[in-house]
Amino acid sequence: MGRGSGNPLAGSDEFVIMADFFSLRTVTWEDGRVKMIDQTALPNRLSYVVYTAPEQVAAAIRTMVVRGAPAIGVAAAMGVALAARRSKATNISGLVRDLETSASMLRSTRPTAVNLFWGIDRILAKARSSPSVKRAKEEVESEAKRMEDEDVEVNRKLGRAGADLIKDGDTVLTQCNAGSLATVGYGTALGVVRAAVEQGKLVKVLVPETRPALQGARLTAFELAHDGIPCTLISDTAVGYMMSLGRVDRVVVGADRITKDGYVFNKIGTYQEAVLAHTHGIPFHPAAPRSTFDLGRTYDEVTIEERGAEEVVQIRGRRIAPKGVPVSNPAFDMTPPELVTSMITERGLVAPPFEESIAAFMA
Amino acid sequence: MGRGSGNPLAGSDEFVIMADFFSLRTVTWEDGRVKMIDQTALPNRLSYVVYTAPEQVAAAIRTMVVRGAPAIGVAAAMGVALAARRSKATNISGLVRDLETSASMLRSTRPTAVNLFWGIDRILAKARSSPSVKRAKEEVESEAKRMEDEDVEVNRKLGRAGADLIKDGDTVLTQCNAGSLATVGYGTALGVVRAAVEQGKLVKVLVPETRPALQGARLTAFELAHDGIPCTLISDTAVGYMMSLGRVDRVVVGADRITKDGYVFNKIGTYQEAVLAHTHGIPFHPAAPRSTFDLGRTYDEVTIEERGAEEVVQIRGRRIAPKGVPVSNPAFDMTPPELVTSMITERGLVAPPFEESIAAFMA
Repeated sequence: MGRGSGNPLAGSDEFVIMADFFSLRTVTWEDGRVKMIDQTALPNRLSYVVYTAPEQVAAAIRTMVVRGAPAIGVAAAMGVALAARRSKATNISGLVRDLETSASMLRSTRPTAVNLFWGIDRILAKARSSPSVKRAKEEVESEAKRMEDEDVEVNRKLGRAGADLIKDGDTVLTQCNAGSLATVGYGTALGVVRAAVEQGKLVKVLVPETRPALQGARLTAFELAHDGIPCTLISDTAVGYMMSLGRVDRVVVGADRITKDGYVFNKIGTYQEAVLAHTHGIPFHPAAPRSTFDLGRTYDEVTIEERGAEEVVQIRGRRIAPKGVPVSNPAFDMTPPELVTSMITERGLVAPPFEESIAAFMA
Repeated sequence: MGRGSGNPLAGSDEFVIMADFFSLRTVTWEDGRVKMIDQTALPNRLSYVVYTAPEQVAAAIRTMVVRGAPAIGVAAAMGVALAARRSKATNISGLVRDLETSASMLRSTRPTAVNLFWGIDRILAKARSSPSVKRAKEEVESEAKRMEDEDVEVNRKLGRAGADLIKDGDTVLTQCNAGSLATVGYGTALGVVRAAVEQGKLVKVLVPETRPALQGARLTAFELAHDGIPCTLISDTAVGYMMSLGRVDRVVVGADRITKDGYVFNKIGTYQEAVLAHTHGIPFHPAAPRSTFDLGRTYDEVTIEERGAEEVVQIRGRRIAPKGVPVSNPAFDMTPPELVTSMITERGLVAPPFEESIAAFMA
């Protein structure tokens, strides 16, 4: 395969590697640059992009070259680290000003996943507490690398905690992609599946395609096929019917933000999966690390991103609806705590009543 | 526009008309031939196909050139009428044998919509009761034309019966396309909307795109835009969230078969809409003519069509999932009577308990 052509970002070095990408990472810091899988090209082409400027990382987050709450948290942190490398400031306050400028741009990319803000704030705190510009630049970079490594380790712990819920032979329904590709590696919801498989269990995954951006069809099916984990792809319209046929044992999804009152913000379609699971008596579990929890907000203080109509009226460049038809395209929805059986985290299960258990878990 | 190219059927005369197609009909009998809109080309191109052989009509039904329970009922009847025109039989039993052969082929195209079987049986009964081959051929043809005309008249009655449910300013959620394009004209679920608009009410329609075949995006949005009825297109994943925001006042859908025990078979995604409507306290109404009711069967005796994987893994010719991923693609689902508020028919509303009310309505 030659040089890729599908990436919308100017100024990036793009190349194609068909190697075993799960030994690599979705987002990684490499020689002072940010390297990531271009997820917009999947599953047709596996290619990587390399960025040297925070503006490139911001564009990548906005256009979903990288997506998934944990992955964009780490990517945004690395975007700030690129700003630090580039800064010509001669004192800490000058450096912090430069970083704040890039941070502000990175924060404006997507509003819903709290990990984005968490990742940026963590890097900024490092810079602010450094004694010199030189030390700050070193610490910012090592913090970004630490966040990358931590992400995989956290997901492995989370996976093990959730795997105990899964019985041999279970079919797990998910939504969107909360896998390797939504994180640096291993995944949250799919990390639970991977950990259960590592325990020797047979686990099947039912994958809704997840319109409009098709992360289920494009990314989750791709990951699972790669790992040899049995999966079946369905249209989003078939979720309820599959439940009614008894073909779903458990629902495990990711999360973009979980507020202190236990409301779960995740990819559009999650809420209706939760309602349908409740109706059919099927357990429903968001799987998310601490960085996804937002103790500073209640459900009514979260912005749900509305994305452009073109995601709905075009699929992979083909028009599927009449020109000019009005579209509503919320990218996320909100699932209330009463529909959640338990939350799967790197510190084990968080169970109802959630307001108390979340506070205890985060303490 | 020139001669169309998107139609998969060989041997049909295809041409493009951009005239006001709602003054025409989705399926019509014209000079001894069957003329229909090629719905696979919508909304990109409005074109008509003309068939002279029952095999062409069968292929058109199978590939969804024509779809929608009432429309395929009439189309299949016309397919049998084409067989009558072609038959060289010299006596009634020979003619009926010829018609049975074509009827058998037409019956095998799609299993779920009962209208298909109803349309075929009605034509066969005409042929069987005719005194001569000549009379049989005349009667079969006039019966097919009568069915075409009746369909529009029935839908207008049904629309008026349902329109009384709709309040000025209501937003109606539908599913798939149960409009002009699913019938000869006017529509069932969208007939209710049209009738409410004719009563001077402002009605907005919320249109889920209805994967995999995208009849909502391609056909319903097209019809409503054409008629100037306000609509908003959403992904199928956004149905529950829209309800939770209070953006749906009533759900009105079509039906492919309603069994004597009140179970509603309709496009995949209908069942989950019904569950979600129930959870949110939103009334749910299938709209269907008598030809959609099946007094001969209970819910467990209906076959739900499973269609090919390519509908899910490709959209308009573009691959959206990895090669070889297993797919489950049920084309329909089943909604139990306890989720139905009332059914809208050409004889008024059919209300619970449905077993009794359906028997009375059909008597």
